[in-house]
Amino acid sequence: MKATGIVTEYNPFHNGHLHHINQSKEQTNADVIIAVMSGNFLQRGEPAFADKWARTRMALNGGADLVVELPYVFATAQASDFAKGAMAILDALRCDSFCFGSEDGDIQPFINTFDLLTKERAHYNLYIKEEVATGMSYPKALNNAYHKIISGRKGPFADLSKPNNILGFHYIEAANSIQSAMVPETIQRIQAGYHDDIDETMTIASATGIRKAFFENGDLSEVRRYLPKTSVDELQAFHQDFGFGSWETFWPLLRYSILRHQPEELRQFSEVTEGIEYLLREAALTAPNFTGFMERVKSKRYTWTRIQRMLTHIYTNFTWSDLRSFETPTYIRLLGMNQTGKDYLNSVKKKVTLPVISRVAASHDPMLELDIRATDLYFSGLPNGAGKIGSDYRIPPIVI
Amino acid sequence: MKATGIVTEYNPFHNGHLHHINQSKEQTNADVIIAVMSGNFLQRGEPAFADKWARTRMALNGGADLVVELPYVFATAQASDFAKGAMAILDALRCDSFCFGSEDGDIQPFINTFDLLTKERAHYNLYIKEEVATGMSYPKALNNAYHKIISGRKGPFADLSKPNNILGFHYIEAANSIQSAMVPETIQRIQAGYHDDIDETMTIASATGIRKAFFENGDLSEVRRYLPKTSVDELQAFHQDFGFGSWETFWPLLRYSILRHQPEELRQFSEVTEGIEYLLREAALTAPNFTGFMERVKSKRYTWTRIQRMLTHIYTNFTWSDLRSFETPTYIRLLGMNQTGKDYLNSVKKKVTLPVISRVAASHDPMLELDIRATDLYFSGLPNGAGKIGSDYRIPPIVI
Repeated sequence: MKATGIVTEYNPFHNGHLHHINQSKEQTNADVIIAVMSGNFLQRGEPAFADKWARTRMALNGGADLVVELPYVFATAQASDFAKGAMAILDALRCDSFCFGSEDGDIQPFINTFDLLTKERAHYNLYIKEEVATGMSYPKALNNAYHKIISGRKGPFADLSKPNNILGFHYIEAANSIQSAMVPETIQRIQAGYHDDIDETMTIASATGIRKAFFENGDLSEVRRYLPKTSVDELQAFHQDFGFGSWETFWPLLRYSILRHQPEELRQFSEVTEGIEYLLREAALTAPNFTGFMERVKSKRYTWTRIQRMLTHIYTNFTWSDLRSFETPTYIRLLGMNQTGKDYLNSVKKKVTLPVISRVAASHDPMLELDIRATDLYFSGLPNGAGKIGSDYRIPPIVI
Repeated sequence: MKATGIVTEYNPFHNGHLHHINQSKEQTNADVIIAVMSGNFLQRGEPAFADKWARTRMALNGGADLVVELPYVFATAQASDFAKGAMAILDALRCDSFCFGSEDGDIQPFINTFDLLTKERAHYNLYIKEEVATGMSYPKALNNAYHKIISGRKGPFADLSKPNNILGFHYIEAANSIQSAMVPETIQRIQAGYHDDIDETMTIASATGIRKAFFENGDLSEVRRYLPKTSVDELQAFHQDFGFGSWETFWPLLRYSILRHQPEELRQFSEVTEGIEYLLREAALTAPNFTGFMERVKSKRYTWTRIQRMLTHIYTNFTWSDLRSFETPTYIRLLGMNQTGKDYLNSVKKKVTLPVISRVAASHDPMLELDIRATDLYFSGLPNGAGKIGSDYRIPPIVI
């Protein structure tokens, strides 16, 4: 069976994701689509809108055959580590290719960029350092350095100012770094940009826009058309049971997690670097809500997502020392599958290079314990999540 | 001016406390009553019913002339350290005597007990060890060992099975250990026992009973008669603004503070000893509320208050290493005074042996920073306390 891997968050699963699955399957001629999906905290440093189980059901209903969890350590990391974790898992599951949505929609520019940057790595790193030293944010510094490198060269090269192109490029780099045999592929993302608000003339909207519209309206009525029916049903049930997650709903606990510590102690948490700790504390002492907090903390030096990742790690008590102690995924946790996914797993069972975990209670992997802890803390922050605290140990993979 | 020190929590200030102040003043012939009072977390390991400012106002209206804060480090410690901190502060403020309420009500048995236990310290410690080794709680072990020591001796000796006698004895020990010149005195506590529910035939009820009655009824109507009018007014205002504190109202944050940590990490917090960490975590994962949590955690090995003190330290992020880094109070924080208290302070200003702090913002004492942090975390847990987070830095002493 031919397998294609995709890297996902499904926060929530919408028509664009449906398109991604269908197109990836067609373009790579795949028998099985394997989605490696973030758990309950996401790469942009946010608690998930709905938990990983609801998102897994949405994914399976949307055509994914197998859904596995990207461990917290990678799911909440900077793009390069995020990509490394995801590629390691898809590779371990013996995917033939991986396929990402990108603004460019053509794989060749990515390959060209990768080859050039590999060759010019030393110059590239030097340029990045120079740019960072001027005080700009890291993503901006990367992009400026990149333009110096490609200037005057024969392309085409990938446009690394676009968020999905950047992620895709990291996937290629990461797959290469683990000498994966997976073939990189890309499809064009359609219509909605990453940060776009909802455009009513289209049936595709970004996940960000969908979440925003929900929090503004208090219900899903405005966003139904951007979601498969199965997603709407799933989200409605989740909302009724637990309410949706966002930093605003997590704010009282987030604030408490910051105020537990003297500023110097905040530096122990992953991604918190010297200089911002006093600001974090001061903002937590004075802000009335999460929006007010971010207004006080944001600066040219740090991107919004970088700050949110710091907050995620403070919230989940994940330190630099934790980060350094994990290099690569040590297990594959099954979240869900259909019959095709099941058949695939059986067919590759002996070749899968990491332990596949379906019963968590039987395992004591420290990386997995972090996932469990993150889930308990996620349900601690959801409006009505308390009843699910402690449940992640016992939940078996979803089979549809 | 003749000054008498008293050790207080005023949680809340009731008729029994009024009696204690009046009797102490009369018996010691004092011009000024100095109350050293716990801040927002108390010796039995609980968040205060009302904050330290409301309790200071109640104390001043009830006849205390000067109210100073017992730092968190001592206020939440085991009885012997609690007593050491309190005695060090009263001694530094040049009190001529200290006067505690006790079940015995006569100072001579305490002196006899102190002299005997000083002489027989080695035997006493040996007996305690033997008793603890049988698996009983520490207070029980102390009491059994004590009975072995006094058996057959000529008394009278203090009855150390009674909670206020025990505390009083610790005060005498502590005052002695710092070679204080303060004269120990005691008055008899009247009518209500420490843990008694409210008895409607008496106008004196325990603070515990008063809090319990409030939480059962949802208002103060049933308990007015046990409180001075000024306390009722103060409490009503506090309740309207913030709601009252108890572990039940703090439960979501307390649970979160436990679930942030793997069990092994819980051992870093003060008073958490090996063996209970897994129980704490398991109970936090499964209990629906604080009562359910304590039902799962309590055991013969640990007293209720000992467990609550562990929880206080987990909640405020106070570790064994913090505990070890502080030996004796390093400042005296003024919470409130009347004209008599002010005059007294002026008269002893040059003889006071610790810095007296009225403007906290100007100070950077690490012990004081803990008090400030504890206050911010206290208001984080109160039903409507968020608006007061960050305020403790700026609040000057109350002057009436």
